[in-house]
Amino acid sequence: MNKKRILKGDILFSKNKEELVQIKDGYLLVDGESIVTVCKTKEEMPKDFEDILVEDYSEQLIIPGLIDLHVHAPQYTFRALGMDMELLPWLNRYAFPEEKNYKDTEYAKKSYQVFVEDLKNSATTRAGIFGTIHRESTEILMDLIEKSGLYAYVGKVNMDRNSPDYLIEETKESIEETKRWIQESKEKYKRVLPMLTPRFVPSCTAELMKELGQISKEQKLPVQSHLSENKGEIAWVKELHPETSCYAEAYDEFGLFGNEQNTIMAHCVYSALSEREMELLKQQKVWIAHCPESNMNLTSGLAPVKKFLKEGICVGLGSDVAGGTKLSIFSAMADAIRVSKLYKLYVDEEEDILTIPEVFYMATLLGGSFFGKVGTFENGYDFDAVILDDSKINQKGLTLFERLERVIYYGEQGMVVKKFVKGVEI
Amino acid sequence: MNKKRILKGDILFSKNKEELVQIKDGYLLVDGESIVTVCKTKEEMPKDFEDILVEDYSEQLIIPGLIDLHVHAPQYTFRALGMDMELLPWLNRYAFPEEKNYKDTEYAKKSYQVFVEDLKNSATTRAGIFGTIHRESTEILMDLIEKSGLYAYVGKVNMDRNSPDYLIEETKESIEETKRWIQESKEKYKRVLPMLTPRFVPSCTAELMKELGQISKEQKLPVQSHLSENKGEIAWVKELHPETSCYAEAYDEFGLFGNEQNTIMAHCVYSALSEREMELLKQQKVWIAHCPESNMNLTSGLAPVKKFLKEGICVGLGSDVAGGTKLSIFSAMADAIRVSKLYKLYVDEEEDILTIPEVFYMATLLGGSFFGKVGTFENGYDFDAVILDDSKINQKGLTLFERLERVIYYGEQGMVVKKFVKGVEI
Repeated sequence: MNKKRILKGDILFSKNKEELVQIKDGYLLVDGESIVTVCKTKEEMPKDFEDILVEDYSEQLIIPGLIDLHVHAPQYTFRALGMDMELLPWLNRYAFPEEKNYKDTEYAKKSYQVFVEDLKNSATTRAGIFGTIHRESTEILMDLIEKSGLYAYVGKVNMDRNSPDYLIEETKESIEETKRWIQESKEKYKRVLPMLTPRFVPSCTAELMKELGQISKEQKLPVQSHLSENKGEIAWVKELHPETSCYAEAYDEFGLFGNEQNTIMAHCVYSALSEREMELLKQQKVWIAHCPESNMNLTSGLAPVKKFLKEGICVGLGSDVAGGTKLSIFSAMADAIRVSKLYKLYVDEEEDILTIPEVFYMATLLGGSFFGKVGTFENGYDFDAVILDDSKINQKGLTLFERLERVIYYGEQGMVVKKFVKGVEI
Repeated sequence: MNKKRILKGDILFSKNKEELVQIKDGYLLVDGESIVTVCKTKEEMPKDFEDILVEDYSEQLIIPGLIDLHVHAPQYTFRALGMDMELLPWLNRYAFPEEKNYKDTEYAKKSYQVFVEDLKNSATTRAGIFGTIHRESTEILMDLIEKSGLYAYVGKVNMDRNSPDYLIEETKESIEETKRWIQESKEKYKRVLPMLTPRFVPSCTAELMKELGQISKEQKLPVQSHLSENKGEIAWVKELHPETSCYAEAYDEFGLFGNEQNTIMAHCVYSALSEREMELLKQQKVWIAHCPESNMNLTSGLAPVKKFLKEGICVGLGSDVAGGTKLSIFSAMADAIRVSKLYKLYVDEEEDILTIPEVFYMATLLGGSFFGKVGTFENGYDFDAVILDDSKINQKGLTLFERLERVIYYGEQGMVVKKFVKGVEI
């Protein structure tokens, strides 16, 4: 099989946060796993592509795959339920009792199958995923993702304090299970890697956190968790860790906050209230997963995303199912713009609102940077792409930019025609 | 043809703002245009329904049709575009130039056809609709709605000041065209009625408003407009009408604010800041169209909807396309809950958040009250109903209430199986 291919269609991708490249009837040139270049005409193509058949997706949109930096796989079963509750009653009524079920590997298999199938059918190609505290079920989730062709970092969750009796680990058990899980999964997959996942500071003892920091360092493993999601939570962390000057320090003191190991922190709604936290996010190159729908649904608040962007912090988007109700990262882009408008109105009138190029950049190139050279169509980047048939909402006279806008507000449901991840059609 | 019919399925309807009736495998009994009753079992049915064939929609949801109290038909063509702009640039770039096109009746026919077709395919059965300033195109819109089987109040818009050159009327012309339009349309339709539609205070002179008030009184015509949508607009109205103590008075002084003629005011984001405005809304029985998505998209603000409900004000929901991007009133319900949460967080922490029964009640019975006995399945109400196949998002063990929740957060797209408006299947 020839490894070179040419895809023709209406191409959109980010160069940077300002520049959204739009090429009507363009050609995307690929060699195996990687992007070669994008050409406006056939004449521009390099000689070694002369004899390659053009795969014609004219009138359809070709974009980089979207990146979901924060999603809870076990919560997909109760998405869009209890959304008129606030965080704590919702966790107790839905999240914790449901996560308990994943002790049963048969249950996990069935539920995770639905989650992975729907993620595969979305425009998302790569994700940072929370499992539950259960090692075996987490490995089932990893198996399913590997098979799907998606790429992901997946975490077995750690919880050894302040958690319900039915969803808590002994400290030692948590550490041992984590080590065993890493051993079993670290080299097993091509597309899936383990990621250390302390649920959040209140549910992990200092002993556990210290050990996880050690594991991260020794085994060069990335980390994901939650940071500064709501005010009550922040006050609670301060109470648990009076030695810290901000929530971020309660991870950093255990070596779980960026630097050598890549780290994703979800939410950061109130991070800008602490200069120190902003400094740590920036200097230690932590990725933020902004989850605007979840932050509205759980009455968390309006995150200062434009500020993060201006500061040069890597802020991508997360669906945060089931705090968010949908897997669609297009939907997260639309909500991110809405949230930035309300932020301007209710938090800081000096702040600007997010633009379409910015949210697209967050959802592709900036979020993608967590996975390496991922999220755009420039030379050498992984060939991750989604082809969308937007004919149902397209209309005469719309520019490529406007067609993208409409897809952002309507979501990809029913539009995904083809999907490629690192060169493989899935 | 027998006028009696029985529909079997999973039935949901509001009795009041607290009580959402949920009947698994229930029977909806209908006689011609009206609801007779709902029965839990066959045995409960009245004798005269004994021989009526049961139409079986088992496993599907049967709910009253949804009510959209505020939508701009001509803006449907540019829905979901320019949504990273703020109100004024967006009006100048999209709304006004597009509305100008409706001077051309051929353009209007084509565009309104798409709008009416999509509204027909949604879960909405009745609506309060803005046209443009153009009489003929507005009548084309009314013809199309009549043919569709939907029920609506439709308005030819009035604008005689502070508007772009290409979208403004002379005062006399505005009045004469309005009178001619009413004469031509008032008795022409079974399902569509004209509704006076001064765009909003800044775009209508006192002379025009006075005349519209007179017409409303003489011809017993309802009124729709915009109220207290954003702070700049409110300040502008105060400047234009220094004699008033609140925005509402700038309608009321011309007899365009409730009392004998039914009135819908869209938005009312800042109405609770004026005691007088709240008093007028309440005492003169004005319907509020709460448009949560639009209020976020156009950086308008968070409306105090729970307060309106507590005060006993009739507050329904509006899609406000194209300030809102979608016709779905389910989507408006989800957004209304989100907005109420942010209102609690950023405006008044003492306020409660909206519940699922409340938003469903707003979208059916409370909004429906504008149209008469509409919006529930109690005896004597109009037989307006929508049958939804939610099998794609349903899962084992969900209650009827939870299935409804999920439909609210996912929207009706692809789910509408049948739709009845005042006894007629459309």
